[in-house]
Amino acid sequence: MLLFTMDTASEVGNDSKVNKVGHSHSHDSYTLRKKKCYLEPKRGLWLSLKGNPLNNHFWLHVEPYWISLDVDADRDGQVERNNPNKGSWMWGPNGHGAILLVNCDSEHTYGKRRDSDICEMSDLKDMSPMVLRTSGPAKLPEGYKLTMHISQGDAESVRVFRTRSTSFVKDYPLVLGSEDLSKEVPYLGGNAEMNFYVEGLRFPDKDFEGLISISLSLLEPSSQGFPETPIFTDRVVFRVAPWIMTPNTLNPLEVFVCSTSDNYQFLKGMRRLVENSGYKLKVCHEYMNRGDRWMQDEIEFGYIDSPHQRFPVVLDSPRDGELQDFPYDVLLGPDFGYVTRTAYDEEVSSLDSFGNLEVSPPVIVNGKIYPLGRIIIGVAFPTATKGRNMTKVVQDFLWAQKVQEPIALFSDWLLVGHVDEFMTFVPAPDKKGFRLLLASPDAGYKLFRGLQNDGHGQAKMFDGLGAEEEITVDEILSDDKLGAENNYVQSCIDWNRDVLKRELGLDDDDIIDLPILFHVMEENRAVAYYPDMVNMIVLGKNLGIPKPFGPKVDGRCALEAEMTSLMEGLGLRCTYIDDFASYHKLLGEVHCGSNVRREPFSFKWWNLEM
Amino acid sequence: MLLFTMDTASEVGNDSKVNKVGHSHSHDSYTLRKKKCYLEPKRGLWLSLKGNPLNNHFWLHVEPYWISLDVDADRDGQVERNNPNKGSWMWGPNGHGAILLVNCDSEHTYGKRRDSDICEMSDLKDMSPMVLRTSGPAKLPEGYKLTMHISQGDAESVRVFRTRSTSFVKDYPLVLGSEDLSKEVPYLGGNAEMNFYVEGLRFPDKDFEGLISISLSLLEPSSQGFPETPIFTDRVVFRVAPWIMTPNTLNPLEVFVCSTSDNYQFLKGMRRLVENSGYKLKVCHEYMNRGDRWMQDEIEFGYIDSPHQRFPVVLDSPRDGELQDFPYDVLLGPDFGYVTRTAYDEEVSSLDSFGNLEVSPPVIVNGKIYPLGRIIIGVAFPTATKGRNMTKVVQDFLWAQKVQEPIALFSDWLLVGHVDEFMTFVPAPDKKGFRLLLASPDAGYKLFRGLQNDGHGQAKMFDGLGAEEEITVDEILSDDKLGAENNYVQSCIDWNRDVLKRELGLDDDDIIDLPILFHVMEENRAVAYYPDMVNMIVLGKNLGIPKPFGPKVDGRCALEAEMTSLMEGLGLRCTYIDDFASYHKLLGEVHCGSNVRREPFSFKWWNLEM
Repeated sequence: MLLFTMDTASEVGNDSKVNKVGHSHSHDSYTLRKKKCYLEPKRGLWLSLKGNPLNNHFWLHVEPYWISLDVDADRDGQVERNNPNKGSWMWGPNGHGAILLVNCDSEHTYGKRRDSDICEMSDLKDMSPMVLRTSGPAKLPEGYKLTMHISQGDAESVRVFRTRSTSFVKDYPLVLGSEDLSKEVPYLGGNAEMNFYVEGLRFPDKDFEGLISISLSLLEPSSQGFPETPIFTDRVVFRVAPWIMTPNTLNPLEVFVCSTSDNYQFLKGMRRLVENSGYKLKVCHEYMNRGDRWMQDEIEFGYIDSPHQRFPVVLDSPRDGELQDFPYDVLLGPDFGYVTRTAYDEEVSSLDSFGNLEVSPPVIVNGKIYPLGRIIIGVAFPTATKGRNMTKVVQDFLWAQKVQEPIALFSDWLLVGHVDEFMTFVPAPDKKGFRLLLASPDAGYKLFRGLQNDGHGQAKMFDGLGAEEEITVDEILSDDKLGAENNYVQSCIDWNRDVLKRELGLDDDDIIDLPILFHVMEENRAVAYYPDMVNMIVLGKNLGIPKPFGPKVDGRCALEAEMTSLMEGLGLRCTYIDDFASYHKLLGEVHCGSNVRREPFSFKWWNLEM
Repeated sequence: MLLFTMDTASEVGNDSKVNKVGHSHSHDSYTLRKKKCYLEPKRGLWLSLKGNPLNNHFWLHVEPYWISLDVDADRDGQVERNNPNKGSWMWGPNGHGAILLVNCDSEHTYGKRRDSDICEMSDLKDMSPMVLRTSGPAKLPEGYKLTMHISQGDAESVRVFRTRSTSFVKDYPLVLGSEDLSKEVPYLGGNAEMNFYVEGLRFPDKDFEGLISISLSLLEPSSQGFPETPIFTDRVVFRVAPWIMTPNTLNPLEVFVCSTSDNYQFLKGMRRLVENSGYKLKVCHEYMNRGDRWMQDEIEFGYIDSPHQRFPVVLDSPRDGELQDFPYDVLLGPDFGYVTRTAYDEEVSSLDSFGNLEVSPPVIVNGKIYPLGRIIIGVAFPTATKGRNMTKVVQDFLWAQKVQEPIALFSDWLLVGHVDEFMTFVPAPDKKGFRLLLASPDAGYKLFRGLQNDGHGQAKMFDGLGAEEEITVDEILSDDKLGAENNYVQSCIDWNRDVLKRELGLDDDDIIDLPILFHVMEENRAVAYYPDMVNMIVLGKNLGIPKPFGPKVDGRCALEAEMTSLMEGLGLRCTYIDDFASYHKLLGEVHCGSNVRREPFSFKWWNLEM
């Protein structure tokens, strides 16, 4: 039973000149102000007045209706009906709100085709589905219409397409974008669903939190000559998926290296390691790398994830060495995305290479859980008045992704300045599931002193390397200058050790010190004295480690023996790869010369508690 | 009892050439690596090795020490000792973290004196106190030093000064600022306190969340010729206090109006109202206002607050009419701050006037508490493809303050386009402590129809206004064009009513509809048909309302009678002020022509639960 009262009854004229038929001050009662039709959005009712103006006899016609703009707000891959939480976004397993991917793969590289319709069907699956569900009369009353709209602030970050079927073809015209903030959408009548596809255009960044709203309004005609006014608005919210990095503890999928005129030995070692480990080696050939062998430094592999789609995305460094075309020309592809940041005026430094961008395994720090780990970058010393830094645009990008809150270490003490020169993570069967490996001159000196005490003071480093000058354990230990240099290096690493312990919640038992010496070059900046074993490639339980060419005891390299012994306890197998001439002498090692694309986390980023 | 072990005993030489005397892999054991002195920051101990190298006999000298950079992290106005939470910031009554004011009053208008020392002692109280507390040996060991430092990212937002006492004078040199990210600070020895003063330079904004860190590091000398490395860092965090607006429900302190050549009548009415209410009227004279009477539009009063200091801050609109010098030249003063935002290239529109910037009383919305109310601005319609907006820089500023989360209403339907043309808040003794007053053409037509039904159809509006054309109730009701216009206006206000109900958690009972008609001018934009009673000034229980010059019944204005009756129920007294010629005809009213500085909230913003 529906009760309807009019406090003023009067004539009803034609559509274009209607008189007031009802009036009420209460907004929640049915109000027919000046109109023959009225929509009561809260109750989902069309009210239309029918009757005979001559005898002042009216009756009210009531039809139920339904308008709902729907998204996958419960994140199960399906667009449910009118989720009550669709208009807001909340993190966590009990959270809600839909998810949008930046459509940055080659089917639709953003920036390429602005404001054009969708060409490739496969592109649809990279977009978030959105459904307009309507139920009601066959036609909207005269002058009413549906409008979809976005705000000016969101216009650069999102586009909306829709499915349009005619009797012959189906196409996907653009509905909303930077040129169209508002557009009428057809009302189909009866029980209808219209499919939309929503595309993200920008990753979260310093000036973009990542949230986007799309609204659908039902517009009511006012008196003739006046603009329509919305009487009902439905709103959905999306969050753009962050770019996520993958730590060494995740399974590898592909290993990338460069082939150059002089790295045959290295390539052979890498191929054997990778293939024996059961993974795929991808070689970037010289026509593409143009002699740039630093595969680690030009790119960082990551991925983006949503309930409906997931694909890898490469972050291209502003370093832009001779490898600069590789990520865009080779990696970018269907379901393989690409993103980059261009530095402002400021000079790009060696700290912008992505050997200086790593990520920890998942950690818990003072009760706070980081199920996707934490990003690690290297910067200048906090107390330094001058120093090199990672460029601001890249730092801003990394911090804005939010789900792997970055840690800034001090790497400017190194000549090359990358965090991978003194630290890495390896999987472990116990404790936190991993160990932090740190280069340690102290551990190096301890090992060399042990050799000396055991009567191996005359054992030679760099034995059999030909051109390289050999040096004995005694000579190393008696070099006061080298000792002072390594004392300084140890202080620098100690600082980072303290930061890593604090920011990753580690104990000393979670850290393994590797015997590595450095020497200090111009401007007090350090390089590895012999191949820097910490700069390794981690492929499941197999480690590819720079062959250190240490002093031999009973025919076996003492550094390899120590390293192997330390890793064996964790169930890890060490393979030593000769990178001496082709990488070490050029101030890099195995890790600098390779890159690994890994499986994504099984943990879903939207389940993070923020 | 302190246990100390050395795994390698050896000679100790002079300071510049010391040998390794101790070594341990465990970082938590006492390590004297290559040094005669060692600081164990975690345990607060100086360790120094003394002895006789000739007989290889050493002993360990142990002294307790203490280094703490202290702030008022518990927000009680006192700098406590080493608060364990001083390095992070948390909202809420159980939160923590120190607070910084933007030092924007005239003693130290930011931007004026960059990187110079403090001149005026009174300026110190606008800054946050910070104390470096040290306890330890009379001198630091050779080569050790203390350094205070900030990050490049914070350098534009903060400056640090310190007290320096000599035997004759006390001065306050600059320690850190945009030119000095890091500076050595003296170690005073024994038990000492050194006082610092921290000054905020920027309000929170789109690119600045408002958090600032200051660090103090103890640097350890490395081998000669190498940089020192920090071995201990203490860090404190501040949040810059947001700019806070004051709603009509707070007690007035001062009322500001302009004196112009033609507003004597208005000024007289205002003076009587303000002085009878017990407040102070401040008149901006013509040499300063240059004929610009819109005191509401050029400025918005607010304040900033911290546990140690609080003062009013005027936000200067980018409108910049002839009143533009008033806030800087007149209002800015000692303990009266000033802030403004300059629009980018984009044109400043009428929506940038601060009649379009209001704030609600405290509200609770679906369980979420807004103890400082919510900011209200007017923008273009969400479905409009074109429209005027408040300029982005001001919107960004308002949103970034965070503590009064803004609501955007639709005000572009008005020719002038300000929210104060259709809404205001008045205090109430019951319900939520206030009522929302809305202009209502429906209420206006109801009143006029009532007059007609009661036989007053010939009563005249604008009676006795001389030049103004009188019009009867019957004439108004028979004007179909005016009816259609008000139908449209009511739709626009209805939209805003729905938004306000939703965003402020209001019921219909919290809203009072005032009988106000509009008419629609060029580009379908509306102006008030007679003085717009909702555009009032609220001074405690006294309301200064534009005199509407409505139709008279028994010698009494029917609009005033209705208004007075509606307000009387809330214990409010209405004073009708004639603003017809000098404001209404120029498209503004009492509120547009005045401004009120009010008492701050007793609620402290840092106690918000975010």
